[in-house]
Amino acid sequence: MKNTFGNSLSVTLFGESHGQAIGCVIDGISPGIEIDKAFLISQMEKRKGVNALSTARREADEVKILSGVFEGKTTGTPICLMIENADTKSKDYSKTKNLARPSHADYTAECKYGGYQDYRGGGHFSGRLTAPLVAAGAIALKALESKGIKIATHIACCGGITDREFENYEADFKLLSEIDIPVLCERKREEIAQAIEACRRVGDSIGGILSTAVTGVPAGVGEPWFDTVEGMLSHALFSVPAVKGVEFGAGFDFSKMTGSQANDSFYIDGENVKTKTNNNAGINGGITNGMPILFRCAVKPTPSIYKKQETVNFKEKTNESLVIEGRHDPAIIHRAAVVIDSMTALTLCDLLLSRFGTDYFKP
Amino acid sequence: MKNTFGNSLSVTLFGESHGQAIGCVIDGISPGIEIDKAFLISQMEKRKGVNALSTARREADEVKILSGVFEGKTTGTPICLMIENADTKSKDYSKTKNLARPSHADYTAECKYGGYQDYRGGGHFSGRLTAPLVAAGAIALKALESKGIKIATHIACCGGITDREFENYEADFKLLSEIDIPVLCERKREEIAQAIEACRRVGDSIGGILSTAVTGVPAGVGEPWFDTVEGMLSHALFSVPAVKGVEFGAGFDFSKMTGSQANDSFYIDGENVKTKTNNNAGINGGITNGMPILFRCAVKPTPSIYKKQETVNFKEKTNESLVIEGRHDPAIIHRAAVVIDSMTALTLCDLLLSRFGTDYFKP
Amino acid sequence: MKNTFGNSLSVTLFGESHGQAIGCVIDGISPGIEIDKAFLISQMEKRKGVNALSTARREADEVKILSGVFEGKTTGTPICLMIENADTKSKDYSKTKNLARPSHADYTAECKYGGYQDYRGGGHFSGRLTAPLVAAGAIALKALESKGIKIATHIACCGGITDREFENYEADFKLLSEIDIPVLCERKREEIAQAIEACRRVGDSIGGILSTAVTGVPAGVGEPWFDTVEGMLSHALFSVPAVKGVEFGAGFDFSKMTGSQANDSFYIDGENVKTKTNNNAGINGGITNGMPILFRCAVKPTPSIYKKQETVNFKEKTNESLVIEGRHDPAIIHRAAVVIDSMTALTLCDLLLSRFGTDYFKP
Amino acid sequence: MKNTFGNSLSVTLFGESHGQAIGCVIDGISPGIEIDKAFLISQMEKRKGVNALSTARREADEVKILSGVFEGKTTGTPICLMIENADTKSKDYSKTKNLARPSHADYTAECKYGGYQDYRGGGHFSGRLTAPLVAAGAIALKALESKGIKIATHIACCGGITDREFENYEADFKLLSEIDIPVLCERKREEIAQAIEACRRVGDSIGGILSTAVTGVPAGVGEPWFDTVEGMLSHALFSVPAVKGVEFGAGFDFSKMTGSQANDSFYIDGENVKTKTNNNAGINGGITNGMPILFRCAVKPTPSIYKKQETVNFKEKTNESLVIEGRHDPAIIHRAAVVIDSMTALTLCDLLLSRFGTDYFKP
Repeated sequence: MKNTFGNSLSVTLFGESHGQAIGCVIDGISPGIEIDKAFLISQMEKRKGVNALSTARREADEVKILSGVFEGKTTGTPICLMIENADTKSKDYSKTKNLARPSHADYTAECKYGGYQDYRGGGHFSGRLTAPLVAAGAIALKALESKGIKIATHIACCGGITDREFENYEADFKLLSEIDIPVLCERKREEIAQAIEACRRVGDSIGGILSTAVTGVPAGVGEPWFDTVEGMLSHALFSVPAVKGVEFGAGFDFSKMTGSQANDSFYIDGENVKTKTNNNAGINGGITNGMPILFRCAVKPTPSIYKKQETVNFKEKTNESLVIEGRHDPAIIHRAAVVIDSMTALTLCDLLLSRFGTDYFKP
Repeated sequence: MKNTFGNSLSVTLFGESHGQAIGCVIDGISPGIEIDKAFLISQMEKRKGVNALSTARREADEVKILSGVFEGKTTGTPICLMIENADTKSKDYSKTKNLARPSHADYTAECKYGGYQDYRGGGHFSGRLTAPLVAAGAIALKALESKGIKIATHIACCGGITDREFENYEADFKLLSEIDIPVLCERKREEIAQAIEACRRVGDSIGGILSTAVTGVPAGVGEPWFDTVEGMLSHALFSVPAVKGVEFGAGFDFSKMTGSQANDSFYIDGENVKTKTNNNAGINGGITNGMPILFRCAVKPTPSIYKKQETVNFKEKTNESLVIEGRHDPAIIHRAAVVIDSMTALTLCDLLLSRFGTDYFKP
Repeated sequence: MKNTFGNSLSVTLFGESHGQAIGCVIDGISPGIEIDKAFLISQMEKRKGVNALSTARREADEVKILSGVFEGKTTGTPICLMIENADTKSKDYSKTKNLARPSHADYTAECKYGGYQDYRGGGHFSGRLTAPLVAAGAIALKALESKGIKIATHIACCGGITDREFENYEADFKLLSEIDIPVLCERKREEIAQAIEACRRVGDSIGGILSTAVTGVPAGVGEPWFDTVEGMLSHALFSVPAVKGVEFGAGFDFSKMTGSQANDSFYIDGENVKTKTNNNAGINGGITNGMPILFRCAVKPTPSIYKKQETVNFKEKTNESLVIEGRHDPAIIHRAAVVIDSMTALTLCDLLLSRFGTDYFKP
Repeated sequence: MKNTFGNSLSVTLFGESHGQAIGCVIDGISPGIEIDKAFLISQMEKRKGVNALSTARREADEVKILSGVFEGKTTGTPICLMIENADTKSKDYSKTKNLARPSHADYTAECKYGGYQDYRGGGHFSGRLTAPLVAAGAIALKALESKGIKIATHIACCGGITDREFENYEADFKLLSEIDIPVLCERKREEIAQAIEACRRVGDSIGGILSTAVTGVPAGVGEPWFDTVEGMLSHALFSVPAVKGVEFGAGFDFSKMTGSQANDSFYIDGENVKTKTNNNAGINGGITNGMPILFRCAVKPTPSIYKKQETVNFKEKTNESLVIEGRHDPAIIHRAAVVIDSMTALTLCDLLLSRFGTDYFKP
């Protein structure tokens, strides 16, 4: 299905960095969900990142809701969200259009689209296309919240600095909703900001690891094969630009554990079945068990750096060197957190609507 | 789509551990692909694992091809592969049917299927269902081979022992096709076998990390968003039981690199565009660039262990303790390698058929 | 998705007329639905047609349930239904394999599968593949019945003889469940039988029109665009071999009506909204309104006739003449009724499960 | 997939009659297809209908291409087409919002969306949403044309007047591209215009039958089951508002034929295999045979009439009478032809791209 994701809830993404507009169509969401514009705007702001750490282009990024919302609530029909491209610097991209920026998609776009792609600013591959995903995610997050389901992401590590882990989901989620740079420990937050800033000064970039928790998902959601919760989430998460790894619960650390250490014992807590540990990230056999869903995403350093790089002209088949001009971020990890939350929310809505029907979120 | 995976090539999986048969239907494969029965059987044997390391049930696992193959070649219509369940020990599962084996899917199956699931031996969740996937994968691997595309997986680490990395794909792939335990270094192979054996003696289990390489995939395959190569592959790979993490190229190690270290410089090699390093695993912007596709899967320790475990009776809502009887493997990582290869092959066939049309593999 | 139909409930069909087995996999049906074997067998018998009107091959057509059913009830996991091909007359098809039987799929199979298709007895195109669809439909029909939804089909006309229309759904549905040739009027039933018999005597064949009614579907099911009830049903119905037209309600007769004649006025009946007429077949804007769903299918004469026909050898590119030997039916319309019911039931289950969630049919 | 249609080529439709904008996203079309703006505009004009026969609202209907087109050609990435709603008469719909207009979707929208639907002017169900489909179709038609595939539709009958059938596809297609009211016979064209005009004078409406031909589709396209050419086309065609029947080739007239009359004999014409008759509409076993694809659509009278009608208030559960005010067409059949062409073109592109890969239409 190419640029469409999801079954019961689907998201279709469109747009290019320097085209007329970017946006997406969300289809399948229950009717009656209130659009919280203030929340939507605050999510969009989080994606832009704090000024201090970001030289990225400053667009108003006003989200226009073209359809699917009536009297402030979802109608149940497709919602088209559109963001007009305003600040599309009219610099001349044609000079460099056949130079493949390393670790960018210029060369693969050429291979796939045969020279017809819009090469300006990464075109359809631009990280800018996460903006409509964040707008869509804002609606999904509110729908989930109405069912007691919450999602939050923090920077687990960046620049050699490691944040503390989630301790108290409720308090930590509240904290993350209020701060600009999603790091739980205040001191580490500053250190990470400094590490990113240091990286900028030398014209380089860094990545890191994002850690996400989802609480409140009922047990029994997901499929045993293929459309497992892990499979569906990872499918969505690898669309977040720069994500190159996804692990659930103990993840790669499982390789250091024995079964008796790794297994999560069940116990009865009042009326509920719970597990003492949560190495399996709230998922057994691809299906939720009611415990928090936990995962981590590896985020590579932003490929646009100011240093001179070796590359090729893929039309002329010549070796070339390249310095990427313009504005670029020394890190996007702090901006990516809200994109992870958004893709997670959209995926979970899909799974829940498939399980419980189209009225699941209807008031 | 629940138990169906793929678009242009789809696989639908069916069966329960102790039901009449397990199997799958593969639809969309090009006509004219020769069925290599010897290869299919050898793949099935690899999945069973070597006797020394495996107490798993010994089934003949004869794959019956019910449809879609005529005069030894694929017809282009759906292929149903069926394996009858023979050795379904008639032990009484009803005693323990409401006890949730830790880190197994017994409890989540109850939540999803409301008590109607076939609980015997894990039912539909059983690792046994990877057998038809391996059979399907054998057909896909041969199709890919006809186009010069090869896939192989080795144990990168297990029990604290680390194998060497791929050095020469051709030689290493050949080696892996000939040995039982997929470890490149002969000495490490023995050490890993001993580590697994040691684990068995204490009634515990271990996991590890599998490392996979794919060579020969043409550039320009995959989608920029959602159906990225990483998204499609991870979606499939998380269906391999016990896989809890997937990373591409440098993966989680990207968090320790700067952009100037992480970026893969392009260069011209004769007529071809190549990269000097391959941290991005042959994938830029979700699309193949012609370099090898590289990924690693975290495999958790097999949850069935002989040690006593704490759990619950989810019907009675009581705390219980449990010793899992019967036959179980101290590790499945050496058996999982061929399942990873199979899922990878099926996913790549899907992507290639979508890109190049239904006749892509036709002779 | 090729040989898979449906989203929330999917059916994947496999097999060839003279292969080892035919069958299908049904995925997504709610757990807990009782398998009514007697009903399943009686549906299979209806598909075979009465002896008097059918020379078709006599297979036992025993349906083996390979998976997805436990202790007599659906588990919620994929159900594989398999029918072994027993009576595959070993006649030599290779002589005629390059002769295109008129109005059969021999030539189009060659164009699509490039010579690799199983040409024996129509291969994957054989009407025999409706047998697993009828078996799958039997499960779907029982699921629907548990929610008060009923489906029945009669021959509206055949051989110039016109049956009466549905008068009393309950009584007419009961009658149709008890008789062999689905004609409401007893006298017409005999006349139609005679017309078919007369056709056989001259070595020719006839078609006709099937009329279907569905009662009890709740209002609010279906989608406004694309996955309309009409769109979904017709998509499925055109897979019934020989169906070449589908009309809903007044259908093609709408062309003779004015808006004031065609519109269905609403009225209140107790607590319910109903319409006085039902020209729109219980569907407005693609969505059910609670009135019976009504449609008619045009069934072409069976293409296999005993008369000599002009055709080509598509390999040699020569004009040829052909007499089709073997067993063939002078009509399949009476046998097609139960296939229509089955496809309708499967499609409606899909729509209902999508609307109300996976547990909709759970007891 | 709700409001998305197609696999290899998909169309996602959004918008409401009185919302901010309507539009669609087309994904999967090959790169390099030239956008013929003049053709697009002329198709949009055809959908609006000639002034004389249409009182429908007069919108500029300027199609904005937000993405997926660069330097006048498709890029291969999603194309978002948007039409802003300008002439949304601010009349007060709230008075009548709970009155179900007969044969409209007001009541079914209430059942599906539970009161959250945008009820103004039919909301998401409005025939106005065919405008973006026609715009999308214009791109698809040009892509097909580049491969020698042509589509045209005429009014086969309306108001008791029957047009002649297609005689010479090339000449007839040219004629239809040049005239406003798609009737082949000039005299009948005038008569049909008069019949529609007469209907308007009495405040009523009429429907009719549309007949479509597609030439140039290569043999071997489509699937044997489910995604048959008939199934895919009908699925799409029933989304054209007011279409209530679809028949291929001889269609419902098959019921009056014998097999020997109905079968299409093959013959060799130079290098090509052709059929003498084309009762099967160029489709055997669900797959194209290279002959023209022929089908007819039954179009019901437009439900909006000026006459007083009986209906209900579905909130209050009371019987009411209703006179629908505002602008409405006495017939839409002449305007629907171009919508049929568009849906046909989009469906065929989907089938061809699936068969031949994503570059099929690339220059």
